[in-house]
This record gives sequence, C-alpha cells and structure tokens, in this order.
Amino acid sequence: MTTFVTLTQEEASQLSHEILTRYGYSRPHAAAITRNIVAVQRDEGHSHGLYRLISCVETLRRGGVSPDAVPRIEDTAPSVVRADANNGCSLLAFEQARPLLLDKARTNGIALLAINNSFHFSALWPEVESLAEEGLVALAMTPSHAFVAPAGGSRPLLGTNPLAFSWPRPGRDPFTFDFATSMVARGEIELHRRAGKSIPDNWAVGEDGLSTTDPEEALRGAMLTFGAYKGSALSMMIELLAGPLIGDVLGHETRPATAENSGRPWHGELLIAIDPHKLLGDTMHYHLEHAEILFEEVLAQGARLPSQRRYEARMRSKETGINIPEALYQELTMLRDAPL
Amino acid sequence: MTTFVTLTQEEASQLSHEILTRYGYSRPHAAAITRNIVAVQRDEGHSHGLYRLISCVETLRRGGVSPDAVPRIEDTAPSVVRADANNGCSLLAFEQARPLLLDKARTNGIALLAINNSFHFSALWPEVESLAEEGLVALAMTPSHAFVAPAGGSRPLLGTNPLAFSWPRPGRDPFTFDFATSMVARGEIELHRRAGKSIPDNWAVGEDGLSTTDPEEALRGAMLTFGAYKGSALSMMIELLAGPLIGDVLGHETRPATAENSGRPWHGELLIAIDPHKLLGDTMHYHLEHAEILFEEVLAQGARLPSQRRYEARMRSKETGINIPEALYQELTMLRDAPL
Repeated sequence: MTTFVTLTQEEASQLSHEILTRYGYSRPHAAAITRNIVAVQRDEGHSHGLYRLISCVETLRRGGVSPDAVPRIEDTAPSVVRADANNGCSLLAFEQARPLLLDKARTNGIALLAINNSFHFSALWPEVESLAEEGLVALAMTPSHAFVAPAGGSRPLLGTNPLAFSWPRPGRDPFTFDFATSMVARGEIELHRRAGKSIPDNWAVGEDGLSTTDPEEALRGAMLTFGAYKGSALSMMIELLAGPLIGDVLGHETRPATAENSGRPWHGELLIAIDPHKLLGDTMHYHLEHAEILFEEVLAQGARLPSQRRYEARMRSKETGINIPEALYQELTMLRDAPL
Repeated sequence: MTTFVTLTQEEASQLSHEILTRYGYSRPHAAAITRNIVAVQRDEGHSHGLYRLISCVETLRRGGVSPDAVPRIEDTAPSVVRADANNGCSLLAFEQARPLLLDKARTNGIALLAINNSFHFSALWPEVESLAEEGLVALAMTPSHAFVAPAGGSRPLLGTNPLAFSWPRPGRDPFTFDFATSMVARGEIELHRRAGKSIPDNWAVGEDGLSTTDPEEALRGAMLTFGAYKGSALSMMIELLAGPLIGDVLGHETRPATAENSGRPWHGELLIAIDPHKLLGDTMHYHLEHAEILFEEVLAQGARLPSQRRYEARMRSKETGINIPEALYQELTMLRDAPL
C-alpha cells in the first residue's frame, strides 16, 4: 500500500521550484519544468510527475543539461519554427516557440515546430493539450535513448518514442492521448524496479535477447514496441521525423547523462499544429460537434476515452489537492533541505 | 497451391483500363485507378491489386461511385489544398491536387491535402511513395466503413483506418509503410473467405462480441485494432483528422455500396507533406545520409524494413512480369469479355 501526502497546487509548485533553482536551474527553466510536472502530478501521472525532479537534478549534476540555456527561436519557413534549446530543457524552448507556432498554424492552416538539442524528460500531453486549448489540433513526438529493439531484432536501437495527440472539444477537456511506442514507458519499468516488482513477460528482452520479468534485466536489455511490426514501423517514423528531418540525432545516438559526464542526452522533438478554423471556416463548429459522435459511441460501448482517467484524476485533485507518494515526498524534501 | 498468370506491365494496364472504361469509368479515372492497382500488383500486393477491379465495377453498378466526376481543386490556405472528389474515386483527385501540394510543401515547409467525398479502395503507399520520390516526407490516412471495435468495446465503430508513411532515401527505394490500424486489412479477411480458410482468433469478434476464427462471422461482427488501446487511440486520431478536421464524415457514417443503391461509400482522406530541404537547406544531404544508419542497424539485427518484401517483389516483377492468380485472371477476362 502506498501512503500519499496531499499538497495544494501552490505547495507542489513551490517545492518543485525550490529544488530546481537550488541546484542551479535558471528561474525561467524552473518555472517551465514546474508547470509541466505539477500538471502531470495533478493528473496522477506518477511516472512523469514530481518524481522527475530527481532525474532533473541528477542530470544537471552529471552535466547532461544546461541549466540556464536561452532557447534560440528561428522563423525557418512560412510554416516552420525552429527552437534550438541549446542543451537546455525542451520545455522552455517549447513555451517560447509556441506563440509563433500558433501564429503560423492560424495563418497557413498547418505548421511545424522543430525543437533541437534539448534535454527531454517530460510527458508530451501538456504540450499538445495546451495547443488544443487554443483550438488547434496537435501532434508531438520525440525519440529518446535507445532502449527498444525493432520488430524482428534483439538489440536496443529505437527510443521509447512517444506520440501525443490532442483534439479540441468545445466546452470539454480535449481528446488527448500520449503513449510510448514501446510496450510501456521506460518510467514504468523504473517504477517496478524501485518497488521491487517483476514486470509482465511481453515488455522486454534481457541482454541475451530472451523475454524477461526482471526489471533490472529489462533495463540492461531491450524493451519491445507495442503492436509488433506496426508499432515498430511507427517508432521508426518518429525517429526519422523528430531526428534527421529536423537536423537532429537518432534515438540510439543519445545517451543518458552519467556520473562520468559522458552522457549526450540531447535530441529533437517535433510538433505539428493544424488550425481547424483555417480549414473549415464557418463550418468548424458543426464539424467539431460532429466529432463528438465518435466519443459518444465509444462511451456507449462501455469503452473509455484515452484521457478519461487523467481528467477524472484532475477533477479529484482540484477538489482535494495533489497526491504525492509519501516516500517520494520525503526524498524531495531531503533534496530541498539537505546540505549541498 | 495458387497458379499464377504472368502479364507484362502493359498487358496488366490494358486489361485494367479496358474493364474500367467498359463499365463506364471516364478515361482519366480509368488511368488513375490503373496506375495505382498495377503498381500494387507489381509489388505483389494481391489484396489491393487487380483484385480491386471487381469491387470498382461492383461499386459503380451499385451507384457507389461517380465514374466521370471531375475533382475540384481548391487553394484553401497557404499550406492547405482541398480536393473535392465529387463522389468519384479518390485517386484522380489525389493526382490532380498533387502538384499544388508539392508546391505548398516546398514553399512553406509543410502542407496538407484534404480529399473530400471520395470513393476510396486503394492502398495508400503509392501516394506517399510518389511524394517521397519528389524528395518529400509524406503521411496519408483515411477512415473507412466501420468494421472495427474500439479498445474495450464490442461493436463496429472505427474504420480499418490505414496509416501510410514514406521517407526519401537518396539513390534507394523510399522507406515506406502502409498498415491498417485494424489487426489486419479487411481485404485479408475477404481473401480468407474467398479461399475458404479460417482466420487467427485475435483478428476479430463475431456479432456476439466473442472472438471468432470464421471469416464470415468476422465480416458480420467487428474487427479488432492492432496494439490494443494504443492502436485504438491511433485509429480514433485517423477518424478525426481525415474526417471532421477536413469537413468530412466519420468511418461509421460511410456504408459500402449495396445492390439496393443504398450505400454511402464516400469519405475523406488526409495527406501531409514535409519538405526536408526547406527545413534543412544545405545540410539536407548530410541528414538524409545520417538517417540511413537507422535502416542499416535494423538490417544488421536480422530484422526487415517494412517495405522490403514489396521492393523485392518489384524487382522480380521487373524481371519476369506481373503475377496474377489464375482464378482472378479468369474472373477479370470474363468481366472484360462477357456480354454486358
């Protein structure tokens, strides 16, 4: 049984901000990171919530992120924005490039944001959801360190390569999904390791290429993609689009920051935003309402929408506060208070 | 054992063209359809090759396609082209809108083509591959008649909703995939039915919502998506992007043409094209070569690239001609020669 500590949104944000600035993140970076992870924690996304503060600090200590990098935003083409994160965290680069992305999508109908050279640890859904809240349809993807074998292969090559999508729903929370193209997010395996639990046998192979239920072995071996050769193809697409297409590296060319400062964790992220109003004009409201039929039919079958649990958690957190596992809370307050 | 008849590309094209024009397709439509299905047959894509001539004729007889519709191409926004197929086949609309899509992608970096009100029966890969041959990166998707249950559901709601992607490889065939988000393409179940073969038990549920190995029962029931809830989310994304976003219907609102002329088979298709040169300028060649590392590493693990078998088939067909199952060939020549 996990015991939780409940914080207000302000308390959770302050804890995050204090930890990040204490270890050297600039105020703009600390603010952008805090907005992301507190939103994720509020939605009970424990693997990508405040837990990530630990790796943000670890990565900084290991030279894997520039804590005060100033993103350089470039207007590359009528429908293309580039944001060079300069080895800083991707989140500030996204926030600073976002207005130009919105503007280009609204002017041209579709636009692309390429984030380069970024340290990336976060869930993608807050980014696509923030675009859907502006009325845009949005896609985001990023390659990451090579933990996943391609279908038919046996060695790590692909990142966990998440894909996120958000669709604006008039008067309702957006339809959003955000999934790793690996069978599960690597963070899930890490949480199992921390909890001393075994993993299902279709999540990963060990270094010997054979199926394993040991999270330690899985983290040393290769994860598997979801959906066999189709999931593997999708993962390769993400490597290409958020890698070479935007002039950045492939997932297997990034390495987590290490104690020896030998990591090279920076890579790319791609976002695409589409403006339904530019495509549909006065008929937009009709067609957005029309899309609701799809969601209603899913629910009428007793199935759930991808983001449904998360929005339910958000409602709960708004009423009762943000829940953090007590062990994590202790770890975070130690991080905040322990002598440097 | 299937016996094959071997035709030259010209013979296969002539057979297709004669059948299509005999039953009333205009010459431009017959030419566009022929280019697509002969290319697919050449690559040994039997489910979407010349076999589809039968349904092209059936659909026409049942009032499900306008055989001489003239597509209306509209320059909707700086990065958006719309092609109203006017209830004609999607392929001619694509071909006629393609130059403007290419132009917009090259000018703005990314562009979107919305095809509306189209009869669609074809594999998507020839379309994205034709864009990759022009040096662009391309995505295509389309919803179709509702045959697939959402994850956690039990009734048909989603189309087989294929997703296709193509990536230009300097001096080589593009990296291309084209897969249904259903466990298999519906055409595969139809081929099993025609061959009197049972299907694996994870492809579909019957009308009772339970798993089935009987293709007849599966065609009356609901297919399943690949990759459980992730595949289901992806399929919903395709419904939304190639449906309401472009002012068109949802998959379950289309119905195959029937003998009673009660079908409503028309729907939308969405393509996105990105110009790597506009994004990368002089560094494009470096980054496209860099992407080759990904493909080399997949092959080095003994795994295959998604399009590899198809390109191998293409090589064979170039040397020895196009293979068509003899039973299908007999059916097609009857279609060409039988009294009307």
